[in-house]
Amino acid sequence: MVIAIVAATILLGACSSQADDRPTMTGVLAASSDTDWRKPSPDFLLYMELPSGQIIMELAPDFAPNVIENIRLLTHSNYFSSSVILRSQENYVAQWGDPNDETGNAQPFGDAAEKIEAEFYRGSAGLNFVGLDSRDPYADEVGFVDGFPVGKDSDSGRSWLTHCYGMLGVARGTAPDSGNGSSLYVITGHAPRQLDRNVVLIGRVIQGMELLTTLPRGTGPLGFYENRDEQLPLNSLRFAKDLPESERVDIEILRTDTDTFSRLVESRRYRAEEWFVDPVGKIDLCNVPLPVRIAG
Amino acid sequence: MVIAIVAATILLGACSSQADDRPTMTGVLAASSDTDWRKPSPDFLLYMELPSGQIIMELAPDFAPNVIENIRLLTHSNYFSSSVILRSQENYVAQWGDPNDETGNAQPFGDAAEKIEAEFYRGSAGLNFVGLDSRDPYADEVGFVDGFPVGKDSDSGRSWLTHCYGMLGVARGTAPDSGNGSSLYVITGHAPRQLDRNVVLIGRVIQGMELLTTLPRGTGPLGFYENRDEQLPLNSLRFAKDLPESERVDIEILRTDTDTFSRLVESRRYRAEEWFVDPVGKIDLCNVPLPVRIAG
Repeated sequence: MVIAIVAATILLGACSSQADDRPTMTGVLAASSDTDWRKPSPDFLLYMELPSGQIIMELAPDFAPNVIENIRLLTHSNYFSSSVILRSQENYVAQWGDPNDETGNAQPFGDAAEKIEAEFYRGSAGLNFVGLDSRDPYADEVGFVDGFPVGKDSDSGRSWLTHCYGMLGVARGTAPDSGNGSSLYVITGHAPRQLDRNVVLIGRVIQGMELLTTLPRGTGPLGFYENRDEQLPLNSLRFAKDLPESERVDIEILRTDTDTFSRLVESRRYRAEEWFVDPVGKIDLCNVPLPVRIAG
Repeated sequence: MVIAIVAATILLGACSSQADDRPTMTGVLAASSDTDWRKPSPDFLLYMELPSGQIIMELAPDFAPNVIENIRLLTHSNYFSSSVILRSQENYVAQWGDPNDETGNAQPFGDAAEKIEAEFYRGSAGLNFVGLDSRDPYADEVGFVDGFPVGKDSDSGRSWLTHCYGMLGVARGTAPDSGNGSSLYVITGHAPRQLDRNVVLIGRVIQGMELLTTLPRGTGPLGFYENRDEQLPLNSLRFAKDLPESERVDIEILRTDTDTFSRLVESRRYRAEEWFVDPVGKIDLCNVPLPVRIAG
């Protein structure tokens, strides 16, 4: 048995040969045109520097404008300079914030608010929603808005970002308005969709996700680190807009309102690659890839 | 703002106070009786020792008896003594096997077969199936059989294990019968359910999952490690039955065919904890916890 060949084709049909005329993801992306890609606004890109490397996150101001603005104020008052990774819980989340928050040494908020009315959902009107044909366990309808996974309810007329792997959210206490953006989390496990509309999501990780998923798990309750020396410090957390051009990565994201994206979804719904015995024919929201590339 | 309290209640309602009379997971487990738990058979427990620690996996002979038997033969001929972690792909899988498989130094198979007819599914008759009321994106019906997540199709009369986080499967090449158990993988990301019925699942990790999820991601295609010195060696891979009693962990698993498990599912469907603004009322197959405890 030839494992290296096995290995190269195993578990990801995109790299194996094509069995019929349906497109594969590799083929769809190769055929994309430059207009299928967009450059995210530096106003809504967050760069987080850890000792282990850089994480880039795109924010979704259509869904949580107020808390995103509060985070901008926090970055401008240097709030995150004393922040650390507080927690890494297996199959769940990584979370960062000020470890001295409870003490007299808490980092000052500057012009930022300590309470923000929770932006758990918004009205569906005015969103650039592209539906996904999928039987979702949690939402009546699902799809994408400008690169973010979204749930939608016709009766209430509401839409919300969904807790897929890699989504970025605002930690909160029991009071819904206690999520002010001073402590953030990223989903590092199977989509915990029960959190949808219970916590405010504000965006997603588009680069460096592995720096969060490979963090040692904390041994305290909920994956909190029990000792200060286990807490990895944030070197910085800044908006791209506040960085010199030379420090910005020229990143591009596939538009979700394009024919190319529709074809991409279909290539992942029907698996044309020879490796697949059963071509599936189904897909779920959090399994749709949202491609990112470095320009040039 | 009081982050330590926030932190303790955040994102996991089970630890926060209860808002109504519905049960929480903590309460359901505290009220469980000893008969709600079972000791898995040492014939179907795999112990894998990595330099970083121990991983324990429970096997599901009801679904893949032949390849499980082949793995037993491989362990008896010491096949895995030269195996390493070959691959860690972000949001997908960790995989191990013989790095010399393609060379003249391939580990011999002993009495084990090199080809095994793929056990992608089986007939539903005779299974101890407990249904889950959930709108599943991939399967007509879903539920549990003796602690494993299962999909079911009434028309074909078939059932199969599903690719949830932590599930253990048999790597294969393009030929369906090439999955002989000499290379195995564990799901370390959002459930890739498109693999259901395309690869043979044989069980799940019940202890030590974090040792696999925190592995550095391989930098080669599909997360393969590009250099030999990145490949973590397996110190051993053995069935519990072949270990001295003193080296076995006295592990217990919550039975899924009990009222306690039904109550557990309901406690995760309707989130009674005060922290939840929206009690959800929905659940998906791969978000149902399958509790494990050390006896005594």
